[in-house]
Amino acid sequence: MQRILSIQLPAHIGSSVRLAGWVHRRRLLKSVAFLIVRDRAGLSQVVVTNPGVRAQVEAVGEETAVEIVGTVIANGAAPGGVEVVEPSVRVLGAPAEPPPFDLFRPQLGATLPTQLDHASLSLRHATRASALRLAAAATAAFRSTLDGLGFVEVHTPKIVASSTESGANVFALDYFGRPAFLAQSPQFYKQTLVGVFERVYEVGPVFRAEPHETGRHLAQYTSLDAELGFVEDHRDVMAVLTRVVKGMVAASGQEVALAEEFPAVHFTEALKIAGAPPDEPDLAPAHERAIGEWALREHGSDFVFVTGYPMAKRPFYTHPDPSRPGYTNGFDLLFRGVELVTGGQRLHRYEDYLAALAARGEPVAPYESYVEAFRHGMPPHGGFAIGLERFVARLTGAGNVREVTAFPRDRHRLTP
Amino acid sequence: MQRILSIQLPAHIGSSVRLAGWVHRRRLLKSVAFLIVRDRAGLSQVVVTNPGVRAQVEAVGEETAVEIVGTVIANGAAPGGVEVVEPSVRVLGAPAEPPPFDLFRPQLGATLPTQLDHASLSLRHATRASALRLAAAATAAFRSTLDGLGFVEVHTPKIVASSTESGANVFALDYFGRPAFLAQSPQFYKQTLVGVFERVYEVGPVFRAEPHETGRHLAQYTSLDAELGFVEDHRDVMAVLTRVVKGMVAASGQEVALAEEFPAVHFTEALKIAGAPPDEPDLAPAHERAIGEWALREHGSDFVFVTGYPMAKRPFYTHPDPSRPGYTNGFDLLFRGVELVTGGQRLHRYEDYLAALAARGEPVAPYESYVEAFRHGMPPHGGFAIGLERFVARLTGAGNVREVTAFPRDRHRLTP
Repeated sequence: MQRILSIQLPAHIGSSVRLAGWVHRRRLLKSVAFLIVRDRAGLSQVVVTNPGVRAQVEAVGEETAVEIVGTVIANGAAPGGVEVVEPSVRVLGAPAEPPPFDLFRPQLGATLPTQLDHASLSLRHATRASALRLAAAATAAFRSTLDGLGFVEVHTPKIVASSTESGANVFALDYFGRPAFLAQSPQFYKQTLVGVFERVYEVGPVFRAEPHETGRHLAQYTSLDAELGFVEDHRDVMAVLTRVVKGMVAASGQEVALAEEFPAVHFTEALKIAGAPPDEPDLAPAHERAIGEWALREHGSDFVFVTGYPMAKRPFYTHPDPSRPGYTNGFDLLFRGVELVTGGQRLHRYEDYLAALAARGEPVAPYESYVEAFRHGMPPHGGFAIGLERFVARLTGAGNVREVTAFPRDRHRLTP
Repeated sequence: MQRILSIQLPAHIGSSVRLAGWVHRRRLLKSVAFLIVRDRAGLSQVVVTNPGVRAQVEAVGEETAVEIVGTVIANGAAPGGVEVVEPSVRVLGAPAEPPPFDLFRPQLGATLPTQLDHASLSLRHATRASALRLAAAATAAFRSTLDGLGFVEVHTPKIVASSTESGANVFALDYFGRPAFLAQSPQFYKQTLVGVFERVYEVGPVFRAEPHETGRHLAQYTSLDAELGFVEDHRDVMAVLTRVVKGMVAASGQEVALAEEFPAVHFTEALKIAGAPPDEPDLAPAHERAIGEWALREHGSDFVFVTGYPMAKRPFYTHPDPSRPGYTNGFDLLFRGVELVTGGQRLHRYEDYLAALAARGEPVAPYESYVEAFRHGMPPHGGFAIGLERFVARLTGAGNVREVTAFPRDRHRLTP
């Protein structure tokens, strides 16, 4: 008999079926036992009256993998309006040891560190599993939106000869006896590949040796990167990003306040909104929160662009704003008051790279194979990078990205 | 005026259009100059007669990024039956320096090392770019096939506390002052996540410190990993893999000999077919070639499963064949005589893991957080891993995976 999923039960009323899944919960009453079985589609109620089967159910603890063969009947009082009666129960594998915390309660009672120590179990909880499903749906929407716009998916090296974003916060590696680093972003590669495909994206891990432990930083996270050529300026990039983010929100099925066009404020305006001094070179988390509140209040939008960040705080490849010295065509997209996306227009002339590196006192040599692309015809281009875990955390209201990451990595956590 | 792509020209005959792309080639005849412009969709022929514009075209070398505004006319002799006349030409960025090799010829003349040294340019060549497009299409088909079968996409750590597949060939890392390693596969994580989602897949980089330099090994490659629970044995895994591979082949649009069901031979039979001694513990590349030839000859199939590999040569988590001591439920899938996929049924009982580790003389401690999952109800399960670059190399007939990898990494190559 072919296995069916819990969600298919209503189509099999009156028939014998085979289910498989985990013992989610048992309710052992005097005359009857209820066995709730969890499979990838949901829960099934199995009603046990036979004493032999009941003894079996009493012996197999929660989380044991089981197979059930029984008859489906309609029962308005049962979850989903159906239940399985006269079951036989077969244990698959071995009976489970009792989990260190209950998985059937609406919320996980354990502290976050305990959850993370026992990720193989805590991830089975509905809240944790659904966050990862949501991440998968958002990632699929990221890709399908960009596929529809003619982007090509690429895979780039994660082991690099020189650090990309900055010398700090980089993991060092022994590469066949030579020093190497883990890539902090696919920045240089995606720019190079604009020269090949015009429009590229990559979904992959990036690595930051973050010394501080906050609720929004990880040592490894999933970066949703895109880059596109033949743009006028950063606004073309923002338009693509807006479509991508709207697609991701729609795929998540979550309630989000979306304006037709995301509001955009220049960095200097953003400082005013946040009540920050006009000479601040960057936005602090409190400023971002204030701007997020303003965008929701004034524009009914959970998203807000901050454009024109000062040169001093953006990477050397950022394109300056030709009309406003000292400022750039770089932007951030805030989601509910937290930086979710960094992006902008990039330099595209070889000479500009040489000048930008010289201005920062950096030698060209480590960037030689990167800047080669710009000697051979690179169109004006730009791109962005979305932090997947941060997106899901903001979307679900999780206070810590570790709650929505399968096996997070930070300064103190290298297992499981 | 909105930019259009080369492929859209036939729909604009008689109209003025704006194109953008790279100078692919120039043909400077006496009375007329032909400018071939390449964009992400293909090539356009631009006809230049105006002396001023001709001087411009003479000055901008191949690979310069340009914008063209001109009128589309039908011309049966032109590629695609259309061309652009009376153009204006605007250089985007700066004129390109001459590339180190011609990109407009049917084949790249440069040696592979030279191509790889100048990846930002060689990847623009039609042969190299199309291989990467093919990789993207195959990856999309991998995901869509599995999405259709109820799999969930996951992202797992690439920095791990202990090596997974074996102690050898692993990159060591300084993780906040502690030793750590780059993951050789997501094996343990995908198994753990079977306990959460039943069916999971991951597309991501894996890292092998391969000491030898062959045409089929890289220090980083893209692994298409899948794992599924509630299987009878490895044959359920092979059935899913067959659907996935057929989807990937279909998406590639390449000619491949596909049998309705992929032929499968037991390891002991495979040795006979290859003319190898019956006590060989593994298949050498020459054996794989012989089996590939046999499968094409006898079954009209470019793919062939070899099942039942001996315990001695499979990882400790491999499920033994209950009916044949010394052999396993592990398999390989060969594609045109080269191992493309490794897979199999895995152990799913905690006690079996303890015994397997003890039998190999390995301590349990480094695997503690991995084996925890098996104490809490793991169904019979199995999975597979497809090497993306190898798939594309076999599909395109490339003799070396480096020809189909954007920026390959090996013992000697850490840039670009």
